[in-house]
Amino acid sequence: MQQREILYEGKTKQLFQTEDPELILIHYMDTATAFNNIKLATIENKGILNNKISSLVFEYLAQKGIRTHYVKMVGDRDQLCRRVRIIPLEVIVRNVIAGSMAHRLGLEEGTKPSNVIFDICYKNDDLGDPLINDHHAVALGLVSYDELNRIYAMASEINHVLIELFDRVNITLVDFKVEFGYTPDGEIVLADEISPDTSRLWDKGTNERLDRDRFRRDMGRIREAYGEILARLERVIEKQ
Amino acid sequence: MQQREILYEGKTKQLFQTEDPELILIHYMDTATAFNNIKLATIENKGILNNKISSLVFEYLAQKGIRTHYVKMVGDRDQLCRRVRIIPLEVIVRNVIAGSMAHRLGLEEGTKPSNVIFDICYKNDDLGDPLINDHHAVALGLVSYDELNRIYAMASEINHVLIELFDRVNITLVDFKVEFGYTPDGEIVLADEISPDTSRLWDKGTNERLDRDRFRRDMGRIREAYGEILARLERVIEKQ
Repeated sequence: MQQREILYEGKTKQLFQTEDPELILIHYMDTATAFNNIKLATIENKGILNNKISSLVFEYLAQKGIRTHYVKMVGDRDQLCRRVRIIPLEVIVRNVIAGSMAHRLGLEEGTKPSNVIFDICYKNDDLGDPLINDHHAVALGLVSYDELNRIYAMASEINHVLIELFDRVNITLVDFKVEFGYTPDGEIVLADEISPDTSRLWDKGTNERLDRDRFRRDMGRIREAYGEILARLERVIEKQ
Repeated sequence: MQQREILYEGKTKQLFQTEDPELILIHYMDTATAFNNIKLATIENKGILNNKISSLVFEYLAQKGIRTHYVKMVGDRDQLCRRVRIIPLEVIVRNVIAGSMAHRLGLEEGTKPSNVIFDICYKNDDLGDPLINDHHAVALGLVSYDELNRIYAMASEINHVLIELFDRVNITLVDFKVEFGYTPDGEIVLADEISPDTSRLWDKGTNERLDRDRFRRDMGRIREAYGEILARLERVIEKQ
């Protein structure tokens, strides 16, 4: 699969058109960012680790009946995916309060709320990806109320599957961010990635953080943490 | 009705216990605040105008079947109201994009969205009354999802009644903030006030602002604008 023109350059990934108009190549880089690009670094081989982790997770979700954009891994840093029209929303699912949400709500990090918290942010760099609600998303013309309900239902199903998966490898799924996109025939599918860059993953025994907070908070041993996540997932997910 | 101990001192109102444990006195002051108390001033007789405006509006809403805490006006600056347990949420209803929401969403002030926008903010001075969503409100233990649905239904009904009322006096109801409370028997009722301090009211002909934005933006003629709102409402609302 020969790569062609670049479609999009993100903070940590590049998207390329392939010869097949319905397929794209996603290339995982080693760049690390935090706080809306204020903090930047390169973490050697992070791209390889995230590509492998996200591929495993998307394969597992597909096995559990979740429709995704993912087709297959085609190299250490590359995934073949269906080309979708991304809905410009970050959907964040929180099982435990952590990060900015703790400050925002005046709750202690680590608090387990009685209900799962769903946040949506408007993907807009100029505005700083603001937290919005359903009415804002509809007013902005991003989605309809019906589409939002489908997105929340999918995010909830993904959450259930992933809580159970990470539980098997002794990890608490604190929170994660997902994005969705439309296939050419109008189906909403899970897109983007699920990795320690886009989630919070705490060891159940020690509460050690095995995710991007190690970078945000200068905790070191980032590559080792991501490697640990990959190793644990490889023990329980069967490669297709 | 002799006033007793002070129950609560707000930014623009004082609440007093009366001899009847189920009734309180709300006293409207002339203080004006903006931007979370960063901007402060006194506007002579604003308290009298807001007391009269809010009394008229609450009487009108009651006539239309909305359950409220309001009992009657008992002086230029004083209202007798039922004592309720306030739900610590500001519910903001937006028919036209204005103020902070315009910046937040990158929309021009004056844009009319296809849908009515409901915002909820967590009433918490230390946190700066942050914008939250339903899941946050439930996680914070402020309300249940069912109670939120009742609150949104009431806010929507109030919006319909007020749009029609202000339309009759040639004013666009751009947005307004309401609060709700529980009566001792567990009923949710409209509480707080509805006035030019808590809403945006634009003259339909000229788009002139007749509300607190005149204070926020140093536009002058604040008392005259509030007086104009009162005069127009007095022409169409029959005093009880």
